[in-house]
Amino acid sequence: MRLPEGFRYASTYAGIRQVQKDDLALILSNAPASTAAVFTRNRVKAAPVLLAREHLRASKGVARAILVNAGNANCATRTAERVALASCRAAATLLKTPAHSILPASTGVIGVELDSTLIVNALPRLAGRLSEDGFADAARAILTTDTLPKMAFGEVPLRDAVAHIAGMTKGSGMIQPNMATTLGFIMTDAAIGPGSLRGMLAAALERSYHRLSVDGDTSTNDTVILMANGASGVKPNAKERMVFQEVLCWVMEDLAEKIARDGEGAHKLVTIHVTGARDNDSATRIARAIANSPLVKTAIAGSDPNWGRILSAAGNAGVEFDPLKVDIFLQRERVCRNGVAAAFSERDLKQKLDHQECLVRFAIQGNGKGEARFWSCDLTEQYIRINASYRT
Amino acid sequence: MRLPEGFRYASTYAGIRQVQKDDLALILSNAPASTAAVFTRNRVKAAPVLLAREHLRASKGVARAILVNAGNANCATRTAERVALASCRAAATLLKTPAHSILPASTGVIGVELDSTLIVNALPRLAGRLSEDGFADAARAILTTDTLPKMAFGEVPLRDAVAHIAGMTKGSGMIQPNMATTLGFIMTDAAIGPGSLRGMLAAALERSYHRLSVDGDTSTNDTVILMANGASGVKPNAKERMVFQEVLCWVMEDLAEKIARDGEGAHKLVTIHVTGARDNDSATRIARAIANSPLVKTAIAGSDPNWGRILSAAGNAGVEFDPLKVDIFLQRERVCRNGVAAAFSERDLKQKLDHQECLVRFAIQGNGKGEARFWSCDLTEQYIRINASYRT
Repeated sequence: MRLPEGFRYASTYAGIRQVQKDDLALILSNAPASTAAVFTRNRVKAAPVLLAREHLRASKGVARAILVNAGNANCATRTAERVALASCRAAATLLKTPAHSILPASTGVIGVELDSTLIVNALPRLAGRLSEDGFADAARAILTTDTLPKMAFGEVPLRDAVAHIAGMTKGSGMIQPNMATTLGFIMTDAAIGPGSLRGMLAAALERSYHRLSVDGDTSTNDTVILMANGASGVKPNAKERMVFQEVLCWVMEDLAEKIARDGEGAHKLVTIHVTGARDNDSATRIARAIANSPLVKTAIAGSDPNWGRILSAAGNAGVEFDPLKVDIFLQRERVCRNGVAAAFSERDLKQKLDHQECLVRFAIQGNGKGEARFWSCDLTEQYIRINASYRT
Repeated sequence: MRLPEGFRYASTYAGIRQVQKDDLALILSNAPASTAAVFTRNRVKAAPVLLAREHLRASKGVARAILVNAGNANCATRTAERVALASCRAAATLLKTPAHSILPASTGVIGVELDSTLIVNALPRLAGRLSEDGFADAARAILTTDTLPKMAFGEVPLRDAVAHIAGMTKGSGMIQPNMATTLGFIMTDAAIGPGSLRGMLAAALERSYHRLSVDGDTSTNDTVILMANGASGVKPNAKERMVFQEVLCWVMEDLAEKIARDGEGAHKLVTIHVTGARDNDSATRIARAIANSPLVKTAIAGSDPNWGRILSAAGNAGVEFDPLKVDIFLQRERVCRNGVAAAFSERDLKQKLDHQECLVRFAIQGNGKGEARFWSCDLTEQYIRINASYRT
């Protein structure tokens, strides 16, 4: 699959994280690009989040570059604002573009001073490496506890030509369904104005990142940015925008699923599918309650078909439903019918649950049309090991 | 400390759980007792919860006995209702009291049929063992994954005499602050009518069980019952009732703290104290968000003074506060001042955090008078081990 035209990427090791692994990435559009972004709803917002928001406001939704560092969240420190600003200004000078066309993003530990000279000094090297082939390297540089880079690609066939979408994302802990979670950067060479782009990003988030839960925590730095630089020369009309929207959703669903699959310590991707709720919102709330329940997540880690925990978690969603009308399926096998145990072979199902993908279906019988799909992962001892020693 | 007069207790092994450890307990008041109870708000309610609620309604808040089994939640099974009813009826016949004066409670696995004959057959033996000294044995029989029985006692000095309060509780997973969590049974020999008793129980829950979080899950069986049989002959007047209320709070706080301390896999009791919020409700929401954050709980497990996670968790509480006015203390040491790192010795603090009790203070500067205290525990690999293999 081809990458969107008119973007270049670079990464380098700036010395921000202790391990000598690239920790600074730059995504550059050759021309100013329409840009939409969604940021964390955490009351505590990191400096790069505040500055990126301000830059997008000042530029009325047009940007040239995303400057990302891993290893330090640049949050809750004395100098956070100054560091974010100095980094953007240095990049702007180097790239000969206004400072407000640079969007900063950071991920890593909170509350530890970030030395801006590390970034400023690395910038010339970084800019020198900019290349159309640098996508995968950049995707690797933005990772923290992730075990794998996460990328997704899409093609949008339109009247005269094909537009391309490419996304990279990171995040494996501190991920919560309520908001634009983790870092995600999606680039396209379609020509779409900032206003339409915002609506498209919001709609795609609703079906992707907002349907994702690793541990129920939302970070101070969550940022998802969508850039459309028009380099393909393709300007979708109203109907074509619907096609574009669909492909954008697929790409972002793909990214979200990859995050769940790589959840901290996770061995299994858990997909939760709720049907028959009163409306989509009710279905989403039930799916989220199941996705966030540590008891469900540990049961799945242990390949235990303990559907009672799923029923109980759903009961905590704050949504009205009749437990006697609930069927629950694990790996497409019915384990609960009308709210009580169905006949199934526990030994066979246990084996099926050893699979790396686990499907939970929570089906409420009746006329309800509400439906939701959610991604989560199992909760393993490894999650504890990773998080009990993150900084040490 | 003396137990309340006029109560007897018994326990036996009925064969409900596989391990041969008492799994059936009876708490009997010699005379009908004013009784208040609070049950789970989970949409999925176990049969004993529904029946106990019905019995209390029918009796207008008067009961004789609590019949509790461990090892099976008697929930989400074909026969759950019948089992709860048959057990109460058999106990009622044996104790020569109306069926609605028996309050059933169950705890254990969900969705597995409970054989009522196990209970019915064990009842005569159980009744034969009723004794004023059976309190600790009963407290042991109601446990599941708990590692310790949990009891608390109080004395209420009144005009002419002393009233006594004794409570037992169980629960170490599936515990959530939103509701009457886990099982709790509190007995007193004061004479207090059902109406006043309900208010007192609600007020005491607000300060105890509702301030407790182990893993953010609420069970289908949560039940807290308060019985007042008047056997001391002491009938507190309006002023004395305030004293009684205070002692009741202490006893229930003590029980709640014991649950947090014995949280599944927990090595540390974590007390979270929030001050300076706009109001108590805001403070409680911040405290709950910190208490429920897996990232905070794992950091504490690893003795990592990672205050950034505490700040970030608080930011997810959905409460307005200025991050730049926040001080955070760990073990009374200031680790964050005005939203950024304070000067502290990480090595010394790490050592202090190895202690079995961990105190987190989240202080918002300014004029806010809102305050809340919350109990939680660390999240360890053991939690996963326990819950990934609960049934196997």
